Amino acid sequence: MATPPVKVYGPPLSTAVSRVLVCLLEKDVPFQLVPVNMAKMEHKKPDYVKMQPFGQVPAFQDDDITLFESRAICRYLAEKYPNKGTAGLFGTNPLVKASIDQWLEAESQSFNPPSSVLTFQLFFAPLMKLKQDEALIKQNEAKLEKVLDVYENRLGSSRYLAGDEFTLADLSHLPNTQFLVEKTDKAELFTSRKNVGRWWSEISTRPAWKKVVEMQNA
Amino acid sequence: MATPPVKVYGPPLSTAVSRVLVCLLEKDVPFQLVPVNMAKMEHKKPDYVKMQPFGQVPAFQDDDITLFESRAICRYLAEKYPNKGTAGLFGTNPLVKASIDQWLEAESQSFNPPSSVLTFQLFFAPLMKLKQDEALIKQNEAKLEKVLDVYENRLGSSRYLAGDEFTLADLSHLPNTQFLVEKTDKAELFTSRKNVGRWWSEISTRPAWKKVVEMQNA
Ligand SMILES: N[C@@H](CCC(=O)N[C@@H](CS)C(=O)NCC(=O)O)C(=O)O
Ligand SMILES: N[C@@H](CCC(=O)N[C@@H](CS)C(=O)NCC(=O)O)C(=O)O
Repeated sequence: MATPPVKVYGPPLSTAVSRVLVCLLEKDVPFQLVPVNMAKMEHKKPDYVKMQPFGQVPAFQDDDITLFESRAICRYLAEKYPNKGTAGLFGTNPLVKASIDQWLEAESQSFNPPSSVLTFQLFFAPLMKLKQDEALIKQNEAKLEKVLDVYENRLGSSRYLAGDEFTLADLSHLPNTQFLVEKTDKAELFTSRKNVGRWWSEISTRPAWKKVVEMQNA
Repeated sequence: MATPPVKVYGPPLSTAVSRVLVCLLEKDVPFQLVPVNMAKMEHKKPDYVKMQPFGQVPAFQDDDITLFESRAICRYLAEKYPNKGTAGLFGTNPLVKASIDQWLEAESQSFNPPSSVLTFQLFFAPLMKLKQDEALIKQNEAKLEKVLDVYENRLGSSRYLAGDEFTLADLSHLPNTQFLVEKTDKAELFTSRKNVGRWWSEISTRPAWKKVVEMQNA
């Protein structure tokens, strides 16, 4: 069997890497996962930085293109394979697409900053034996609460963030939320909100995401 | 004359509002600017929050759609009017489009966080008679330097961030950079870097952006 042309560089435990992995699995696109040993700072080596100039994971290669930025990679995959695997991840008409883009930006701009800080402080810092910053945790928990209040309202009138279908906008929330719900004491932020809790149950039990979690725990 | 169907809500001095304005002017799409008095907290009023659930500016309306998130609005405009005004803002083939998306994400994820903090601390805080946070300024200046080093390298081999053409990726950098270069003592971050300085001269002197700056100073 030929090796698949798609390569993803980085560990599945990275939230940005796992965002790309779940997209590939949803789209049913075969790929090869190339390890990057971050403890050995392989992500800062010249050859790697040629692919990812900020020295971060993931980097991504397909036939004729090298890309970085997890959300850009997801957009690329959804546009390249509209009808493969889960269809409609990036919409089927311009109005739906604009709504997906809007909620994907809400994830990137409003949800990701506080949830990344909390994931790092509450899950990765203890693993790495780093001291936690209590003030930072409090401040970002308050920010995240406000974002989740907006989501609670939205998910009261819409099954998924961008409309009736599961899309990139929902998918992009999986990595951080997984850690916060399963690996910290902040699950309640999500589960205490009726609509957010219902949404989380739906999106986190999709086979593609369950496969990524298996890869993370392997 | 009929009022144009496109409405943008918010003051041109807001970086997120001005990102949308420059996109509309580049695309030569007529619009109506609807004032939102932020000093009077109009952006938190129920009717406004129906359009922008996070209570921020801008909000945007076209015929049949209401949107928030400046970068999602720019993507929508570039896709709706590919051949109006400046063509190619979002690419003309999938590979170029992926490159634009990648650098637009680099702006949103890597450039925007430190440059927004610096714009706020060094320009808006003094205007609003708020105390500046020196530690925060230092920390974000260091972050921005690293990002600009990546850009310097990229812009040594490419006229614009995503390739040979001016695109949404460049456009998205205009609002924060304008304040940092013109209204703070940090212009050197940009002008001391040869390729970044050359790029900034090119993109900041485009007629569409000059018009936005006029609106900001009016
Ligand atoms: N915006 C980037 C973020 C990438 C990122 O922050 N990756 C982290 C791991 S989740 C990383 O490589 N950290 C190491 C570093 O920044 O040196 C994306 O979405 O791809
Ligand atoms: N990610 C949003 C950011 C919008 C934003 O932060 N707007 C600021 C002005 S530049 C605002 O409304 N601030 C008031 C607030 O957050 O209460 C976008 O790009 O549209």
